[in-house]
Amino acid sequence: MVKMKKTMLACMLGSLAYMAGGYAVAQDKAAEATERYKPNDELIVAVEPAVGQDPGQVELGKKLWFDPRLSRSGFISCNSCHNLSMGGSDNLPTSIGHNWQEGPINSPTVLNSSLNFVQFWDGRAADLKEQAGGPIANPMEMAFTHDLAVEILESIPAYKEEFKKVFGKDEITIDEITQALASFEETLVTPNARFDLWLKGDDNAINDQELRGYLTFKNSGCVACHNGVAVGGNTFQKMGVIEPYVTDNESAGVAGVTGNDIDRMRFKVPTLRNVELTYPYFHDGAANTLAESVDIMGRLQLGRKFTENEIEDIVAFLKTLTGDQPQLVMPILPPSSDLTPRAKPFD
Amino acid sequence: MVKMKKTMLACMLGSLAYMAGGYAVAQDKAAEATERYKPNDELIVAVEPAVGQDPGQVELGKKLWFDPRLSRSGFISCNSCHNLSMGGSDNLPTSIGHNWQEGPINSPTVLNSSLNFVQFWDGRAADLKEQAGGPIANPMEMAFTHDLAVEILESIPAYKEEFKKVFGKDEITIDEITQALASFEETLVTPNARFDLWLKGDDNAINDQELRGYLTFKNSGCVACHNGVAVGGNTFQKMGVIEPYVTDNESAGVAGVTGNDIDRMRFKVPTLRNVELTYPYFHDGAANTLAESVDIMGRLQLGRKFTENEIEDIVAFLKTLTGDQPQLVMPILPPSSDLTPRAKPFD
Repeated sequence: MVKMKKTMLACMLGSLAYMAGGYAVAQDKAAEATERYKPNDELIVAVEPAVGQDPGQVELGKKLWFDPRLSRSGFISCNSCHNLSMGGSDNLPTSIGHNWQEGPINSPTVLNSSLNFVQFWDGRAADLKEQAGGPIANPMEMAFTHDLAVEILESIPAYKEEFKKVFGKDEITIDEITQALASFEETLVTPNARFDLWLKGDDNAINDQELRGYLTFKNSGCVACHNGVAVGGNTFQKMGVIEPYVTDNESAGVAGVTGNDIDRMRFKVPTLRNVELTYPYFHDGAANTLAESVDIMGRLQLGRKFTENEIEDIVAFLKTLTGDQPQLVMPILPPSSDLTPRAKPFD
Repeated sequence: MVKMKKTMLACMLGSLAYMAGGYAVAQDKAAEATERYKPNDELIVAVEPAVGQDPGQVELGKKLWFDPRLSRSGFISCNSCHNLSMGGSDNLPTSIGHNWQEGPINSPTVLNSSLNFVQFWDGRAADLKEQAGGPIANPMEMAFTHDLAVEILESIPAYKEEFKKVFGKDEITIDEITQALASFEETLVTPNARFDLWLKGDDNAINDQELRGYLTFKNSGCVACHNGVAVGGNTFQKMGVIEPYVTDNESAGVAGVTGNDIDRMRFKVPTLRNVELTYPYFHDGAANTLAESVDIMGRLQLGRKFTENEIEDIVAFLKTLTGDQPQLVMPILPPSSDLTPRAKPFD
């Protein structure tokens, strides 16, 4: 209910901003404009550090996050494609799955993913817990089964004990596995981006060019879709509104979930937080740079050809959305027992 | 010179221990025997925490260790096959290389690898610095080239700056890359194994079964090859002395380096530190458990069929060699610039 309210609000705000797209702004007087535009009428909301997760679930989820034994090969972990050293993504056009299969879609960042209104590009999972079970059993990704993942963990005494301690149950099921993973993922927010500091009143947190970029981003209509606490992640939108997006990628988008042709090329709007780190861009990973992405989005979504200066300014603004990256001590994974099935990655 | 002396000493000690292989020991009076066997006449030496590395090199080397951009795919990092969450190994029979190629040999642990007298199973690298360049350019592993790795790093401003600060040079070369990696690896020692504490005089650090296992290990001749500070890693030995070792694996061992047929199936003796974590075992990764490995080694190397009890005792002893695992904060890798070539893992 809260989620729905937030989404509706974002859409309404988005529509307003969209209508304001052609608004003329004295961009060379960006500094002067600051007072008018911040902070209360902003469509972007500062993200706060995560609180309230169960510490036991988080610690267990962190182990599972890094554990390649949840994959058929024993080689691929959650972190392989959502690398927390690299903005929570893999920086590849599309991901590498079991047996080096070419994934169908660009790996979205796990950072701030708890702020998304639904999970996956096509929204086919309602929340992180539901999402977490997907890649484990996807034959294109970790290519395992939930039953085999459970069998592995059940055979490892230290895991068995930790699950028991955290969940108070004798049996491990996929339900506890995905719950722990989701709890860990909920901690992966990135507060204190310079733009957040600016939103909170620190006028010096961003420079004139960055502010100019923000105002262009806002007034040309980018903010219609990229708004809210995740600067995106709260609506589905069609990729290619004014002009069609040309791609070899066959992802159906939301149509793959609804079966409706009208939902072809509709995707969840990606968060722009940490976008500096999550290249290459778009669902097909076809855009290598932010400049290229901004140019394409301007033309295809807004019917607007940004000038080189405008693109540079917007890119400078986007880089102010890089927040504090999670500082994680790598977990030491409990060793397999003699009874644990050994991975045979080449069978 | 120091290295040679250490090796010669280990061989001499090893030979003595080997001759003592049939020595009758009152294993049921293990506790009483403690005083006779420790600490000064032990062939195993406690490992101490690493000291003296250049902190700047270590920090840079840690980033490089986790950076998949040193591979052609942008997916494989040093840590992929020497996973520091998993005893510095990948727990696979042989490793997965570029394009899911099946590696020729079991990935040795990086933990305590600075204590090895040479690097790789066949000793083809003299030290860690020389070793570090190998996998990057090996078409079966990371499948990159040194030149392309340098080109990538040169294009990333934060790396450029860090190399300059650490090495005081304007140009990055493979020499600084491997030097930084080696400095990081030198920190990956695992002190405070319970057996080390026992060696240092804490009688309660190991229990009766573990002590019994150690005495069997020592008196049956295992210690002939597995001795010194790494409990191995200081000699080449033939796999299959008394009986030949049967394997499908085609690794030539030291013969691949010397070209001498007599060196077929000769390998560097692996360290037994953290062996609890580095399953499966042997150069072909064919033995899934410690019990299986101890049984095979007893028969093939020593001509001795250990009883089930003896095997259980030795396995219990081997697990006392698990030391403090490195506690590492995951590095945040500097993002690629617009000029950085993007990985194309499926080309």
